[in-house]
This record gives sequence, structure tokens and C-alpha cells, in this order.
Amino acid sequence: MGKLIGNAIFGQSGGPTAVINASAAGVFTEALQQTGTIKKVFGAANGIVGILNEKFYDIGQEDPAELELLKTTPSSALGSCRYKLADQAEDDTDYKRILEVFKKHDIRYFFYNGGNDSMDTCNKISNYLREAGYECRVMGVPKTIDNDLFGTDHCPGFASAAKYIATTIMEVYLDARVYDTGMVTVIEIMGRHAGWLAASAALAAYKGHGPDLIYLPEVPFDLEKMLADVKRVYAKTGKVILAVSEGVKTRDGKFIPELVGEVSVDAFGHKQLGGTAAVLANYLKDEIGCKVRGIELSLMQRCAAHLASKTDVEESFLAGQTAVRCAVDGITDFMVGFQRPETGPYKCEIKLVPLADVANTEKKVPLEWINEEGNFIKQDFIDYAMPLIQGESKIAIEEGLPRFAKLKKVVVK
Amino acid sequence: MGKLIGNAIFGQSGGPTAVINASAAGVFTEALQQTGTIKKVFGAANGIVGILNEKFYDIGQEDPAELELLKTTPSSALGSCRYKLADQAEDDTDYKRILEVFKKHDIRYFFYNGGNDSMDTCNKISNYLREAGYECRVMGVPKTIDNDLFGTDHCPGFASAAKYIATTIMEVYLDARVYDTGMVTVIEIMGRHAGWLAASAALAAYKGHGPDLIYLPEVPFDLEKMLADVKRVYAKTGKVILAVSEGVKTRDGKFIPELVGEVSVDAFGHKQLGGTAAVLANYLKDEIGCKVRGIELSLMQRCAAHLASKTDVEESFLAGQTAVRCAVDGITDFMVGFQRPETGPYKCEIKLVPLADVANTEKKVPLEWINEEGNFIKQDFIDYAMPLIQGESKIAIEEGLPRFAKLKKVVVK
Repeated sequence: MGKLIGNAIFGQSGGPTAVINASAAGVFTEALQQTGTIKKVFGAANGIVGILNEKFYDIGQEDPAELELLKTTPSSALGSCRYKLADQAEDDTDYKRILEVFKKHDIRYFFYNGGNDSMDTCNKISNYLREAGYECRVMGVPKTIDNDLFGTDHCPGFASAAKYIATTIMEVYLDARVYDTGMVTVIEIMGRHAGWLAASAALAAYKGHGPDLIYLPEVPFDLEKMLADVKRVYAKTGKVILAVSEGVKTRDGKFIPELVGEVSVDAFGHKQLGGTAAVLANYLKDEIGCKVRGIELSLMQRCAAHLASKTDVEESFLAGQTAVRCAVDGITDFMVGFQRPETGPYKCEIKLVPLADVANTEKKVPLEWINEEGNFIKQDFIDYAMPLIQGESKIAIEEGLPRFAKLKKVVVK
Repeated sequence: MGKLIGNAIFGQSGGPTAVINASAAGVFTEALQQTGTIKKVFGAANGIVGILNEKFYDIGQEDPAELELLKTTPSSALGSCRYKLADQAEDDTDYKRILEVFKKHDIRYFFYNGGNDSMDTCNKISNYLREAGYECRVMGVPKTIDNDLFGTDHCPGFASAAKYIATTIMEVYLDARVYDTGMVTVIEIMGRHAGWLAASAALAAYKGHGPDLIYLPEVPFDLEKMLADVKRVYAKTGKVILAVSEGVKTRDGKFIPELVGEVSVDAFGHKQLGGTAAVLANYLKDEIGCKVRGIELSLMQRCAAHLASKTDVEESFLAGQTAVRCAVDGITDFMVGFQRPETGPYKCEIKLVPLADVANTEKKVPLEWINEEGNFIKQDFIDYAMPLIQGESKIAIEEGLPRFAKLKKVVVK
């Protein structure tokens, strides 16, 4: 393909991670250097919504030191969205609007950072622009703590969340066994459909300070079986730690809060929707009769930049940087994926995955990595995940607390 | 006082912290060096319970490198307890037993690490031993994330919890405002009677990434007032973060779960005791109608050694070390406290506080440090807490995860 001169826009979509801004840093620093082809670099406010609303920032006006700090700043610095484009055949209003905005601002490079849905969005937009005869190179940058994107060995964001989960569980493990009395601890981990994050609890167990039982959404949940598991471990040691994915459900599709906490009502008569950790802890307290504690790792597992994996930060930056380099070289309609050598030590290699292949396909934890009982993870997962969590990201510190990036966010007129 | 030759024992009591083992390292390394007076150094399994059960470990047999790792290992390495000694006048069984064990093992130095109750225990034991004519030097080493011990400027453990709370809230703050839709986040922080930990959320606000509202147990809680506060902030920005101490209660003594979540019942008819964050989030969801999230910082806030304050680690070590040096020098019946210069930069100075003064007295957040509305913290607290959270503790890392101390725990016959 020939040289394409114009402006570039980058957007962040879906739930944030500890390293999504590292990808932003990769896109921005590389795009700002491509002065021969990319004239201006824009950041869309709240992803595709910012494009539709014609609200984006002029990244060229940002202080390079602040862009560098993006590498260690969690969450989505530009703002994110969960907006889903309609099927073009049914309603092409948004597509027309995007074409209009792109034309008006001479946007010839579109980089979008997100998960399955975002790759679908990229793909749809690219197809529309092509049909409309508007030349624009569209590249996806992967992002999801859930690690469930098709076609890539792993996803930026996953390893930092995994490192947070494993480290935190190791610390909680020590805390939860200080007394010489029985205790059951339920740790709820994110992951609605795929259990990669809950599986990461096994890294703590590998280090001798982890859960006794791990339940993933990949295996149908059986309340009776789980209770028997807990009772067995409790009888042996008096201490039980369960790592439970928020997405575990029974064979007929019932989530844990529906199984054991459904009918609770507060003082005002409002229905309470308890979290998995809380309701399971209450259930086990009644069944086992000992002290229990439900812990939800909540937003912390996806925003703990202070505990990010250096490998993850570097790879996330690389993904953004590579997307720009590819696009400038004439490549379009791919997501930047990763692969590792089939044998030998871990190395992160780039692999381009067609957007159409990624869109709306989920990658789950292989069933052969889960033990037969369906309550723990095998060594295969440890071998897979361990290289990804290596290295400690050094966040900037000011007065003993993080110094996160402060962007000027100069809105493009 | 003359030279007292004999064995030393150290015990850990109450809820653990990120740095209680740093004090253990201080006691152990110093006591092992006092070879002229201290013959053997023991660690009591589960605090005073280990003394009563005559179960303690021979610390002289531990690898010095592992004792060094105690500085960065959270929780209570020896195990803890919540055992309360009876009033001697009513029942002296435990006291007789302690005297018997101390005599049998020639224990002449007793170091106890804990909060109010533990200092009370120290005091009672010391009085009994003195009355019985058994010479033993008893020193208290302070410990509590709650920071509520009388007579000391601050308590080992508090600053690391404060640093964790402030850092985590800064990260959550960024995460909680990625979407262009309304959101209320309730963060529940430990502290049943004193609000020092919830106040630490103000450190995040000082850095521009903190809560809008902070509620402490020092101020009577008013549900209507809180709702009005939230509505006011929400109307202005569409995002509200509340930091709430688990101990806040109304003027007539009702805790939040009792106020808004009391009657909830699970699917099995069991009464559910929701946490403050969860029930308050549900309440605000109904009242405000936007997305809400309740986050409980749970055990993580007291065991996050990976995010400990270097100042806190060093001071905790110093407290243990000083207790031993004082006792060897003939001092007894004091807790090692801290003070800072009245003017000039922060410096940690040792201050000995009589055990009798510490026992069972609580130090709360001064009311003049809380704003008039009772929903935020003034600069006085920032000035107080900021020096304490300085410096990042460097934990040992092995394969990307913490390498915590592994003690042999050779039981004394």
C-alpha cells in the first residue's frame, strides 16, 4: 500500500485495566514520531462516543513527561465507554456520523483499545469506511483483564491483574491463619465467562500461600460438591481459602447469589443483590459454623498499577506502538496479538490477528488445565502465567503516594 | 537495677498488621545479640495462649536471613490470639500457670506486641510476677492499624495501612470515573471506635484522587445528612466517592448495617449480616438511582506488606529493638511509644509510656481535625499522617511474587 497522510485517533473502550494507558503511551509516542505520515494525534474522549460527539483531545499538546507517566497510570486516561454500534444493515446513523467526523478532521488512522466488543466495533467501522470509499487504516489494540480474546496467547492487562490477585491472596493467606481457631475465607475474583483471573489464584498456591479450592466458570458449579470440598479441607486443617470466579454458575445457569442469597430484602423492602463472596461466606458460616470472611477483590484487581507486572506494562506499550507502525506500513484490519515460542523460554512475539476473527469470540481456560474434580488448576496454567507476571513496574512516587499522569486534554475545535 | 540473666520470650497478640513481624525482627535480632544477659530467645505460639500451653519456638535455631525477611512479611509469624486474662482477684489460675512456665524455663524477659488489651495483659502479668517475688522485666511493643493507643504519637502498623488505603483509593478513584455516566462508590475502611484509618482516605484527596466525603466513628452518623451530602456532590459532578469507617454509628448507637440492611434473609432463611459498604451501596442505589459499587478494603488494608511504608517498617523494627535494649538496661513495665518534635521536620523519637497508662485507654481522632459538617478531614490530619507513610518498603521477590519468611519453628521441649 502507498503512503497515507492524515491524522490519527485513538480510543479506549470497555472496563479499564492497570495498563490500558501503557498502550495509549505506546500509540501516542509512536504516532507523534511518525511526522511524515501522521500529522496530528487525537485521543477520543470516552472511546467511540467521543468520535460520535466530536470530542477529542490534541495529544500533540501534551507534555511528553506526562505521556511517559501514562505507562504507570491505571484506568482509562481518555475515558471509556460501553457503547455498542448497531448492525449497519439495520441502522447506519452512527456509521454515517463517524465517516463525517473522520472526513472533517482528515482522520486516516484509527486505533481502538479494547476487548471483544471493541474489536467488533473496529471491524464494523473499517468495513463501512471501505464501502464508502474512504481510505482509513484501522488497527485494534487488545485489552482485557479477562484474558479471553481469541487469537492471542494472552491479553494486555491480564498479567497485572493476575499478579495483584496472587500477591494479595498470599498476604491474605498469612492473615487468615493467625488465630488457632477455624476460619473459612471466600475470595471473589472477576471473570463472568472465562476463569483466567480466578485461575491466577493458583499462582499463590504454587508459592505455598494460596487457596485450597478454585472454582471457575468453565466448570458447572455444584453447591453440594463445593460444600463437601470445604468440609473435607476444614476437617483436615481448620482453615479453608476458596477462590471463586464471580461467573461460576450451575449447569442450569444459576449464579451463586441466586442459589444462596436470592430473597434477601433490606430494611426499606428493597431487594438486596449480594456479591458472590458475601453470600457464599454467609452460607458457609451457617453450614460449617466457624468464622468466615468474604472478600471481593473488586475494582482493585484491575486498577492496581502499583503492583503491575513489568512484563505486562512493556507488552502493552509494545502493542500500542506496533499498531501504529503496522498502520503506517499499510496494514489495516488487524488486532495486534501476542504469541510465544512453542519451545524454549518465554518471549513475546507479535502476531497479527484479523479483526473479523477476534470479534465476539471468547477464549476460555482449557478444560484440560482444570483438575478432574473441577476445584483446582493444574501446573499447565502456572507454566503459562508465570512468565507474564515477571518484573515489578516502578510507578512514580511523590510524597509517598503515586504520581499519576495529568493530561491537559486540550479539546480539538 | 542489676544485671538480670535468663531467657526471653516474645509474643504477638490481636489482629495482625503488615509490620508486626518487623517488630518481631527487632526483638529477635536484638535479643539474640544480648548474649551476656539473654541466654535463649523464645517466640510464643499464639501469644499468651502459647505461654499458657507451654508452646514456644526456639528462635536461636532460625536462619538469620529468614529473621531478616520477617521485616517484610505481613501477619503474625508466630500466630496471634485474642485471649483476655481474668481479673487476678477473681481468678488467678492463668497467672499461676504463667509464673510456673516462666520459672520452669527461666524466662526473665517478656516482650508482648499488641494493642490496648495486650498492654493490659502485660501490666497484669508484671504486677502478679512482682507480687510473687519473681523478677522479670516486661516491656510492651505497640501494634495496631487502628492507631488508637494512648500515650504514643502513632502506632506501628497504622502508617502502612494508611499508605495502602490512600494508594488504593487513588487507583479506584481513576477507575470509578472512566465512564461518562453517574457513579457512586462506597469504600468501607476498618476502625470500630477510632477513625484514623478512614481519615487516611484524605491523603488520597490531598493528592487530587480521593473521596468527596469521609465519615468517622468520632462523629454521630446521620443517614439523612449523608444522603443530602451525596446528592449535593452527585448533582455537581455525577461521581461520588464515600470513605466510611466500619464503626460509624448514629447518636443512639446504631451501625449502618442495622440502619439500612437489618432484616435481610437469605434463601435458607438465615439472617444475613451485610457489610457497611454493601448495604450502604444498595441504599444509595435505590435513593440516587445511578450505578453504585460497595468496596470493602477488608483484610488487605492490614496485610499489604507489598505496599508498606518504609518509615513504618523501620519504626516497628526500632520499637522491638528498643524494648529489648530497655529491658536489658533494667527498665520494666513500659510500652515503647513514639513522639515527634513539637516544631521542625518529622523525626521519630522514643518515648516510654507506663503500661498502666496505656491499658484500655483509646485515642481517637481529635474532633478539631474533623470539619464542621462532620463529613471530611482537615489539613491537620494530612500534616500528621504524611511523614508516616513516606518511603516504599522493598519486599523480597522470587519469580515475580513475594518471598515471605519461612521459620523452622522448632518447638522448645
